[in-house]
Parts: sequence; structure tokens; C-alpha cells
Amino acid sequence: MNIIDIISKKQAGLELSKEELQFVIEGYTNGEIPDYQMSALLMAIYFRGTTEDEATNLALVMRDSGDILQLGDVSGFKVDKHSTGGVGDKTTLVLGPMLAACGITFAKMSGRGLGHTGGTIDKLEAIPGFRTSLEIKEFKDNLNKAGIAITGQTGNLAPADKKIYALRDVTSTVASIPLIAASIMSKKLAIGTNAIMLDVKCGEGAFMKDVLHAKELAEAMVKIGRKAGRTVSAIITDMNTPLGCAVGNSLEVIEAIETLKGYGPTDLEELCSTIAAYLIMDSFKERDFDKAYKMANDTLHDLTAFNKFVELVELQGGDTSYVYDTDKFEKAKNVRYLMAEEEGYISSINALNIGEAVCALGAGREKLGESIDFSVGIKIKKKVGDHVVKDDVVAEIYFNEKGYDRAIELLCKSFILSKEQVKNKLIIDVIRQK
Amino acid sequence: MNIIDIISKKQAGLELSKEELQFVIEGYTNGEIPDYQMSALLMAIYFRGTTEDEATNLALVMRDSGDILQLGDVSGFKVDKHSTGGVGDKTTLVLGPMLAACGITFAKMSGRGLGHTGGTIDKLEAIPGFRTSLEIKEFKDNLNKAGIAITGQTGNLAPADKKIYALRDVTSTVASIPLIAASIMSKKLAIGTNAIMLDVKCGEGAFMKDVLHAKELAEAMVKIGRKAGRTVSAIITDMNTPLGCAVGNSLEVIEAIETLKGYGPTDLEELCSTIAAYLIMDSFKERDFDKAYKMANDTLHDLTAFNKFVELVELQGGDTSYVYDTDKFEKAKNVRYLMAEEEGYISSINALNIGEAVCALGAGREKLGESIDFSVGIKIKKKVGDHVVKDDVVAEIYFNEKGYDRAIELLCKSFILSKEQVKNKLIIDVIRQK
Repeated sequence: MNIIDIISKKQAGLELSKEELQFVIEGYTNGEIPDYQMSALLMAIYFRGTTEDEATNLALVMRDSGDILQLGDVSGFKVDKHSTGGVGDKTTLVLGPMLAACGITFAKMSGRGLGHTGGTIDKLEAIPGFRTSLEIKEFKDNLNKAGIAITGQTGNLAPADKKIYALRDVTSTVASIPLIAASIMSKKLAIGTNAIMLDVKCGEGAFMKDVLHAKELAEAMVKIGRKAGRTVSAIITDMNTPLGCAVGNSLEVIEAIETLKGYGPTDLEELCSTIAAYLIMDSFKERDFDKAYKMANDTLHDLTAFNKFVELVELQGGDTSYVYDTDKFEKAKNVRYLMAEEEGYISSINALNIGEAVCALGAGREKLGESIDFSVGIKIKKKVGDHVVKDDVVAEIYFNEKGYDRAIELLCKSFILSKEQVKNKLIIDVIRQK
Repeated sequence: MNIIDIISKKQAGLELSKEELQFVIEGYTNGEIPDYQMSALLMAIYFRGTTEDEATNLALVMRDSGDILQLGDVSGFKVDKHSTGGVGDKTTLVLGPMLAACGITFAKMSGRGLGHTGGTIDKLEAIPGFRTSLEIKEFKDNLNKAGIAITGQTGNLAPADKKIYALRDVTSTVASIPLIAASIMSKKLAIGTNAIMLDVKCGEGAFMKDVLHAKELAEAMVKIGRKAGRTVSAIITDMNTPLGCAVGNSLEVIEAIETLKGYGPTDLEELCSTIAAYLIMDSFKERDFDKAYKMANDTLHDLTAFNKFVELVELQGGDTSYVYDTDKFEKAKNVRYLMAEEEGYISSINALNIGEAVCALGAGREKLGESIDFSVGIKIKKKVGDHVVKDDVVAEIYFNEKGYDRAIELLCKSFILSKEQVKNKLIIDVIRQK
């Protein structure tokens, strides 16, 4: 096999075989195929796309470039969830304990935030003492003990994907649906859970700006899952407006805890209950959606999910007193208020602006490795559809030394009012395997 | 400016400005833009193509990456000719002296052969003593003295093109018409001649296999010439069958000398006279094609072109006794004959096979820098349209130690017979600036 022939085959729009993709991925990972040939191939894939078989094989050979985390020695029905990234997305912190409370094992490897989107690992580190780098043994032990464990990436999962992603980032080949699908799935398939739910965010604050592309990506990933013999579903959810009300690390943990106690924002509760319901159905604990939804949602109102969260924090070394008393979380030094300038209904809240504003305050990072400020953030006081009169507070800005000017500038243009009440549709679509 | 934005602009099918192309070419030449970003951009150009302005600007900025050979101090009307490469193509050796004999200055930088196509510089070196690396001063002096000079590339012409071509070669981005056009024209525009004639070879033995693509390339180059303010024409000529009868370095020089004396193959004489005629028209020495053709063709029958060739060889240090007595050229040790197996008309002679056969005998090189054998080659005794009976010799094979088996194998399948006589159309099209 020869890389130039493979590039030229893809250029001509022909399907690459699994052996050819293996040759490419192995050769690129071990340095035999140079960056310049890989980037030419990636650009050819950008223009020509892939077949379902090619996308699946690409995901599988990238998965096989590294370790595979077998979970055979972990009891119960094991599930995983992945979000393509949004603003205010603290779903994992609520969903995990809900599922564990329902007797489903939530085995999650999460990432850090980058750019305007947050990351679960950063949020958890807002809890003093919480360890986010578990060894594989501890990860599995905790799963067996509590039915839940959340860690940063452990072991050497899909190193080929990491190397290829870095190249795509600098060659304008990120925005290719089959490449995105194969990249995400290479990592998901490397973890031996029984079912996977993919939350594809869609809108201003998400990578996928429109429903058409979000749906295409979701379907591509679900198909890869089916072809790889795994139970994979996808939910397409709105990210024009942030999820919940809190954006910023500590603020989001506090909101997650409130949700686990039954008084969180409706949209967050609805999303977590819906995703949980589908995973419960996958586990066959309950086959009817409404019953599964109720089973999941009940855990937010009988404290069983909250107690699971306490157990998670305790097992991973976090200070549980913060969970019981969220006032203990360090506060940003300053708080300012954004007020409505006239009467009306909130018709949209620009998630991208909010994400960038919070990032400017220091809650996020522009480059990998930068330190972040857990205490800063924005609390949205009026959501889409809410009625406001002049001078109603629509948002609170928590800040320390940096970024206030930039944040308020972004925030001012983020809230749009209208005369008529509009409703935001949170769950746009659900894609289940046939 | 940012290379990722530029890649993404071209990906979207938008036109790159001259400033953007300059940024890319300068950055790539000085190493600031790495190979992997350049190859991604080249692949995007492969898929999206370019506008005429883009192709012209690309040629100009590649030209400007190196030296420009001004010919202001060379007297007369100066012309250049470029062939896209074929088998048996000794046009330059005949055309140059013809033009010089007509009082037109032929300033030519030629290349070496690579793969199945030969190169003028290799052919000239078959003449003992002939120097093919002239300094710029000697090149110009000879032009002023004799109206003709042929040298290997002098100075640092279009180094960006050289670097980009090497990258295209290994990333499957050679076959892009705007990239080929810009590459050729970057080097042609670097030499300050008054008119340029491009011979775009088309068919089995050429890079462009079909007329449609050859015409597209020819038109692209002529347009670049016009936009760059230069007089450029193109002639599209058949390369399904080799040009003339001799293929191999010494054999081709001998055939060129025979043509200069008025008894060369008709197709070679026709092509050289036609190209010369158009360049004579460009010079305004004669504005009517038929008269210009006759003026050019006459030089082959009154020895004026032959005498110019002797002058060229003498000025560049070659042994002119070889020109006067071509029997002096070293002979290959062995000669074998290919005979017709039945009666019929020759309907095609596969130029690619003949080129590869001669290369196998040692007349060409697979890699740059390999040494070659001047004496080996093939002489075609029956051309397309000729009638043969069983056992007529259709080709002679001149060989030394290597390659005979491979050559005869290729040769056997190169001659195709038919019942009806077919004629080969040598000159397919001529594209002149409007």
C-alpha cells in the first residue's frame, strides 16, 4: 500500500477499505506518514466525505491506536454520555447521580473546557479536594461501589485521534462531519460501556450552528455505533441559549446541586431526565419512556440522586461540606447587575456571547494548560419566554480582577426582547438505533 | 493575514487576493508556513480550482520568489518555447536554429528528462564537449552573437515553484490544471522574452491524456500570459505516437541534424515549421501564416538552420565534427529488429510504451541525478498510416547491457495494425491571444 495512491483514491471519491484506513492511521501515528500527506488526505475527505463503512472503520482504527478500557469486571449496566460542548452545560453532574440512583452504572471520562465552552473536569475541581485523575483500578472500584465515577481521560485512549485532531485544527479540516463523528466515536468506543447517549448541541453557542448539520452529525455517530455493534443514541438539543441559569465553574456546581435537590432550572431538569430515561430504556429496567422519565425524575425529588452525588464527591476525595452548604464555595469579589432597558419578553439569550463573556472573566481558557478562576461567572435571572419590565435584573455578573468590561459589552448585546412571548424548544430531536 | 483563514477561504470556493497568495508563497518559501498547511491548501485548490486572476497571481508571486532574467541587453526579438513533455520530442534542437536563421533570437532554458519523457539538455550532452550550464553573461553574449543559446536552468528561477512541485508530487495534487499552468508560467514569465509558444502535448505519451484537458491547460496558460502582459500562444499536438522516428539521446540529435538538412521526418518538420511560423508572426517579420511558414521551412532546405546549429554547438564548446558526420556518434553495441507479423496499416504506436522501453534501455532516468546512456534507443521505421507486409521491419532497437527484454516486451504491444489506413492528426489546435 502507498499513501499517495490512497490520497488519490479518496480524491476520486472512492471508498477506502478498512486495510487502507489502518495503513494510514498506523503510519501516521508512528510517524511513517508525514503531516503533509495526512493533511492532504484530510482535505480530500473534507471535500469527498465518507461512506458509513469508512467512517466506522476510521473510528475503529483510531480507537485501536491506543488502550481500550474493558469494563467486564464492573457490575451492572454501564452507560456513557457525551456532549459536543455548550455553555452552562452541567448535565453530567446531574445525570450521573440520577442514573446511579436508578441502579445504572455511570462510567464517565470527561474533558476540560476550551474556548467558550466549559468542561466537566474543571467544574468538579471547583469542589476542594476533588480528584479528577483516577487510576483505572480506582475508577472501576468506585463504579462497583457507588455506580458512578467521573475522571479526566485515563490511559492512552485513541492517540491517533489526538494527533489527527491537532493537525485538523491548523489545516481548516475540523468542519467535516465524518471526521468529527469518527473522532468522537473513536474515544467513545474505547470505553466498554453497554450504552452511549450523545448530546449534540445545536445553535449559536455550539459547534454545530444549524439543525441540519447537527442531525447529520448525530446520525453519523449513531450509525457508527450500530456498525460497531454498540447501543448508541443521540439527542439534539438547543444551544442558542445557555443551559440552565449558571455559567462559570462554581456557579454551575451549585446549580447542579440545587437541581439534584429538586429545585434546579426546568430546562436542565428536563434534559437530564430525558437523557436518563433513554439510558434506562436501553438497560431494560423500564421500557416505556414516560415511566423511565418518571423513574429518573423522581431521584431529583427524593434526594437519592443528591446522595449519590455526595457519595461521588466523597469517594473522589472532595470536601462534602461544600455539597451540603454551597455558601462555602469561594465567591467572586464583585457582583454587578444587567437590567432590562424596557418592557418585553426575552426572545433570545446568545449562548456564544455568554460563553465568551464568562471566558473573559477568567472562567475558561483560550489555550490548553492555562489556569482558571472557579469563582467568576454569570447567572441568568430571566430566561427565554420570561416577561420583564424596565430595570428588572436579567443577569448577575460575578467577577474578580479581569474581563468585566469585555464581559458586560458582550452581555449587553446578548439579551434580545420581543413584544410577543416566544418559547425555546430545548429538545429538538432524538435519534435511536433501529 | 492567517494561513488557516486563507485555506478556509479557498475551501469555501472564494477567490484569494494577490496579497493572500503572496503571503502564502512567501511564507511557504521562507519556511514560516509548514508543508502540512500548504498541502491542505493545494488540495483545496485541486477541488475548488482558481479564477484566471488567481492563477495569474499565483504564477507571478511564484516567479517573484526568485531571480528574473532580464533580456533588455539582448538585441532582436526574443522568443521562448516550452513543451509539456513527450516521447521523441527533439523540437527545440530544430526550431531554435530555424528561428535564429530567420533573425529571431531563441533564448531557451531547458530541462533534463525524467520518467518516460526525454529532455533537451540530455540530448545536447550527447554531443561531446557541449556545455549545458552557461553563466547568464555567456548566455546573453551567445544570444547577441548567434541569436541562439540553449542552457540548463541558470540562476535561481521560481524557487517557490520548485518547492511546491515537490510537495504536490507526494500529496497527489499534481493533476490540477491551474496549478500546472501557474507552475509552468512562473518559470516562463521569469525569462524576459518577447513571445512564448507553449507546446501542450496530448495523448498516451503525454501528461495530458485527452484533448479536453490539454486545451484547458493551454487556455489557462495563454490567459495567464495575457493577464501578465506577455505574448503567449499555445499549440496542442498529438503525443499518442512519438514525434519523428528516433527516440533516445544520440539518435534524436542525429534525427534533428537530418531535419536541419532537409530530410527529417515529415511530422517533425511540420511541427517545427508551424511553431516557428507563429513566432515569426509574433515578431511581425511576417504577418501571414503561409508566408511565415514558408520562411521558416525554407531554412531547413537552404542549410541556414543547419549552419545556425553548427554555430550553436561551436559556441557552447561542442565538437562540430559530430554534426558534420553523424556516424561519429557512439553506437550502441547491439541492434535488433521488430518485424510486422502480418500485412496491414500501422494504426497506432503507443508513445508511452516506447518512452518506457527507451528508458528501460538506459536512455532515461527514474530519479533525478541518475546517469544515462546516450547511445541506446529505438528507431521507428514505419509510422502511423504506413502500409506493411509480414516481416517488414517496423522498429530497430539499439541497446547495450540492460533493458532489452523489458523493451522488446513493451515494443511488441506498441504497434497496432488495421485493415484500413488511418491518418494521425499532429496539430490538434492552436490557441492565440485575442
